[in-house]
Amino acid sequence: MTYRKILEEIFTEVQPYFGKGKVADYIPALERIDPKKFGIAIATVEGECFHFGDAQEAFSIQSISKVFTLSLVFRKHGDALWKRVGIEPSGTSFNSLVQLEYEKGIPRNPFINAGALVITDILISDEKDPKAYVLNFLKTISRNDYIHYDQVVVDSEKAHGYRNASLVNFMKSHQNIVNNVDDVLDVYFHHCSIAMSCIDLAKAMLYFSNHGILPSSGERLLTVSQAKRLNAVMMTCGFYDEAGEFAFRVGLPGKSGVGGGIVAVIPGKLSVAVWSPELNPKGNSIVGMKALELFTTKTGMSIF
Amino acid sequence: MTYRKILEEIFTEVQPYFGKGKVADYIPALERIDPKKFGIAIATVEGECFHFGDAQEAFSIQSISKVFTLSLVFRKHGDALWKRVGIEPSGTSFNSLVQLEYEKGIPRNPFINAGALVITDILISDEKDPKAYVLNFLKTISRNDYIHYDQVVVDSEKAHGYRNASLVNFMKSHQNIVNNVDDVLDVYFHHCSIAMSCIDLAKAMLYFSNHGILPSSGERLLTVSQAKRLNAVMMTCGFYDEAGEFAFRVGLPGKSGVGGGIVAVIPGKLSVAVWSPELNPKGNSIVGMKALELFTTKTGMSIF
Amino acid sequence: MTYRKILEEIFTEVQPYFGKGKVADYIPALERIDPKKFGIAIATVEGECFHFGDAQEAFSIQSISKVFTLSLVFRKHGDALWKRVGIEPSGTSFNSLVQLEYEKGIPRNPFINAGALVITDILISDEKDPKAYVLNFLKTISRNDYIHYDQVVVDSEKAHGYRNASLVNFMKSHQNIVNNVDDVLDVYFHHCSIAMSCIDLAKAMLYFSNHGILPSSGERLLTVSQAKRLNAVMMTCGFYDEAGEFAFRVGLPGKSGVGGGIVAVIPGKLSVAVWSPELNPKGNSIVGMKALELFTTKTGMSIF
Amino acid sequence: MTYRKILEEIFTEVQPYFGKGKVADYIPALERIDPKKFGIAIATVEGECFHFGDAQEAFSIQSISKVFTLSLVFRKHGDALWKRVGIEPSGTSFNSLVQLEYEKGIPRNPFINAGALVITDILISDEKDPKAYVLNFLKTISRNDYIHYDQVVVDSEKAHGYRNASLVNFMKSHQNIVNNVDDVLDVYFHHCSIAMSCIDLAKAMLYFSNHGILPSSGERLLTVSQAKRLNAVMMTCGFYDEAGEFAFRVGLPGKSGVGGGIVAVIPGKLSVAVWSPELNPKGNSIVGMKALELFTTKTGMSIF
Repeated sequence: MTYRKILEEIFTEVQPYFGKGKVADYIPALERIDPKKFGIAIATVEGECFHFGDAQEAFSIQSISKVFTLSLVFRKHGDALWKRVGIEPSGTSFNSLVQLEYEKGIPRNPFINAGALVITDILISDEKDPKAYVLNFLKTISRNDYIHYDQVVVDSEKAHGYRNASLVNFMKSHQNIVNNVDDVLDVYFHHCSIAMSCIDLAKAMLYFSNHGILPSSGERLLTVSQAKRLNAVMMTCGFYDEAGEFAFRVGLPGKSGVGGGIVAVIPGKLSVAVWSPELNPKGNSIVGMKALELFTTKTGMSIF
Repeated sequence: MTYRKILEEIFTEVQPYFGKGKVADYIPALERIDPKKFGIAIATVEGECFHFGDAQEAFSIQSISKVFTLSLVFRKHGDALWKRVGIEPSGTSFNSLVQLEYEKGIPRNPFINAGALVITDILISDEKDPKAYVLNFLKTISRNDYIHYDQVVVDSEKAHGYRNASLVNFMKSHQNIVNNVDDVLDVYFHHCSIAMSCIDLAKAMLYFSNHGILPSSGERLLTVSQAKRLNAVMMTCGFYDEAGEFAFRVGLPGKSGVGGGIVAVIPGKLSVAVWSPELNPKGNSIVGMKALELFTTKTGMSIF
Repeated sequence: MTYRKILEEIFTEVQPYFGKGKVADYIPALERIDPKKFGIAIATVEGECFHFGDAQEAFSIQSISKVFTLSLVFRKHGDALWKRVGIEPSGTSFNSLVQLEYEKGIPRNPFINAGALVITDILISDEKDPKAYVLNFLKTISRNDYIHYDQVVVDSEKAHGYRNASLVNFMKSHQNIVNNVDDVLDVYFHHCSIAMSCIDLAKAMLYFSNHGILPSSGERLLTVSQAKRLNAVMMTCGFYDEAGEFAFRVGLPGKSGVGGGIVAVIPGKLSVAVWSPELNPKGNSIVGMKALELFTTKTGMSIF
Repeated sequence: MTYRKILEEIFTEVQPYFGKGKVADYIPALERIDPKKFGIAIATVEGECFHFGDAQEAFSIQSISKVFTLSLVFRKHGDALWKRVGIEPSGTSFNSLVQLEYEKGIPRNPFINAGALVITDILISDEKDPKAYVLNFLKTISRNDYIHYDQVVVDSEKAHGYRNASLVNFMKSHQNIVNNVDDVLDVYFHHCSIAMSCIDLAKAMLYFSNHGILPSSGERLLTVSQAKRLNAVMMTCGFYDEAGEFAFRVGLPGKSGVGGGIVAVIPGKLSVAVWSPELNPKGNSIVGMKALELFTTKTGMSIF
């Protein structure tokens, strides 16, 4: 069966899952999205790309940005990074602040908000213009110069960002934030507000599928070991409090965002991105998770 | 390089890691073990077996037994099982009881003690003689009729089992234990006290490496999907509060025990078991983790 | 206004509060109680006694027993006691086990179940027959030889005592229980199952109102300082997670039980006991709390 | 024995307790204080005032300000206030943020920082100039026009106020802060930075000792019931995680501050203020607590 055919079948089979979740409503800019949107794209390490539905439409990637910022910082700092952020799953969502308090301002992993704020803080220390830096990186790896910050989302995030402000101030009180808290929040909100399509994301994730090398240019972005290790972090920490469920049902390293996007990686083969805005109570796209479960079942691809 | 050679090299390279941990001391029966013990064994899906050091010596498998009891119960009950136990990583160890309290007696996953006690409770409801049942299963899959319960360890567990008694009573108060609490503890302590060698364990784990089929007999013990899914649970939950670290460094599904054993699986290829009694503060074998890290590095085998 | 008149008025004014709570239902023996029961009794340091309603009817004193066992142990061990149990309020009920885990098996105060189990453990170490010892003490201070253990309640407690079994095993695992866990539970459940009337309780509490001296005999049971201090512990810890609310509304040291009883003390003057089985969600008698609030308002008696 | 004599004796007897604690070091402005400072003052409802040592020297009252701001807000809003802040002790300090998270942004009581930030938010909504309003109130009740904000402390608080910024942002995310977070922090830090002497504080607290009436003017600031109730809140919540200990040892309603000050109230009789900068690990003045314990022992005054 061709990938094209598989994507079509998936679309048919996920129909019953529409209408069962809720579009993210914590900021007005996301609330307005059409809940019926659905896109899926595959990019192979050989350079092929397949897609279906609204795969060309840019949406708010939100926490998926955390994978890219982490890889930029990990590439530069290596294991020294883990002094400021852990790599363990975060357990129940109920204790996001509990654990941060118990562990004295060291976030459990780089994919919870607190952890990504630390990564952002490091980027600010390292780069003159951390917003342009990340955007340019994404343009390069997606081969798409139109990737941009969605200013409406940025403004909405800032107007409702009290919980993130709480986290960053808390970590600052534990000396785990170096820069000005408002600067950290500004850059962080920008990264969350990047707009990309499924096609962009599938291409952008390819260096994780290709042992650290960007297939389009042959450039090595991560060592083999680094690429493996970041895939491992995605596997254990990529889905908030649902990493176990995603591993159980889909069985691939990946990362989700509350914009309804999910990216996943089949090492050595391909990367896949799916978008459907309705979320389950844990913040992951319901249709997106089902689509990826069907994808691994239909292709027989799995890392296990 | 041959497996035999690789195992030798590993032994040489792990030398600096001896003496850095502590043999489990919560029960006298484990405390007495020689900390310098080291065994490693590989079993391939083609039927080959390689081993080095004390790989023929039986040791207390402790929590590694949880993998086998889980697979027996999952085979029978399927996804209905997940009503009584979750599949999410448990987060920091500090909140073992916190989470159980918050989540009203439903353990986070089947590999923390609370979860394994629920699995034991189900086995007791299902089987006439749950001790013989599990032992016979292990004898079959290891092809070793000498596998046995170590009665000294059983007695020691019972004499110091107050924390497990606390857990089982707590879950009973939440109606998540059906049988008599003393019966559950008795069977649970027996399973923890099984003595097996690295060779036994490597062979026993092969059905997880072989998509559910026992290579020695061709018998299907789990469906392809079930085997994948249990590998995923090992990946996200198999190392107490160190699942992220193990995934990051080793990158394989696996399970550890406080006896110093670790088993791991390379799907489609082989399984590996290592034993070294000195533990890190999180309860995992220091030398064992290093040995497995070296194994994946040297063989280039990885699921990522 | 006479006390008799005040008690009548209180009865009239609490009428609207009946039917708003729920009789304790965690054990069948308590569930059967008539929710309309209401008794109140006052005992003065001068030896007078006033009562109204069902004040002569014995009911299950439950956690009120904790005041008496604490005073017996404190009298003997003095401040050495506080190595094994704290004297701080317990915070939200949600974290009963959390705090015990965080604080390594040292209960926050002697009035939460964990703390009272430690007190019971000490009594068992000290006394040959801790059940008879406590019962005889209560008979003496209440001047009522008919006070007894309600065997139906004892049996019911034992049949549903998994949560207490969890607590005592947990503390045993932290070496804060010396005796056999089943013995501790047996004695503890007996103390909770003592049946006394409001009149008995009002008289029994008089040594707390009278600076440590039993008015009926002149016998000193506590030093002045000890009596003050135990009143302070009642004030800050006597009402589960509602100590602040009770202090705010009633303003007296006291102790409640899930049988619907509450005792309170006006130092230098009198003690008062009230009984009404319907509880609020925090486990305190709704009508009882209202009655005591009215009592302090009408008499103008307050410690503040 | 005269009060004067008692204060002298106390000073002699607390000598061994100097040097056992640590001056607050979370902000530089407090760190510089001479640890040997000691002042104590008594103000009676009859209008007398006794003092000893550095009782005329102004120091940073810090959290003692919370008593005054609470009384201003409670006087105006009555029990409607308790929708936004609780009146229960806060349990262990370890879970300050835990509880706020668990209880969805409603602080446990008005004397923990989160609670006082809510009180400040209400003051800002109510008053045109909440800084002048509180300062004028304190000048009136202390009869001292020189009471002022210590600008050095204000600046120091602001430069190190990340934890409070975390709290206020967290509550804002739960809609329990109405005003701009920076405004709330500004006013809050000002109130913490008020400089008063023991004599000022003893006089200022007299309306709590005198059932709500300011003795110097006869003005009623609180109803009898309100005064009682705020005394009850001080009793159960006035000493961070040491309310039980203070009640046990001293047995009076009171409030402490990390500047080393403690105020306490003997209803109907007097108020007392003590100052000694060295704190115990829970943030209360070591010498101050001992001084008050001696005061109640020597005078025989107690509410229990």
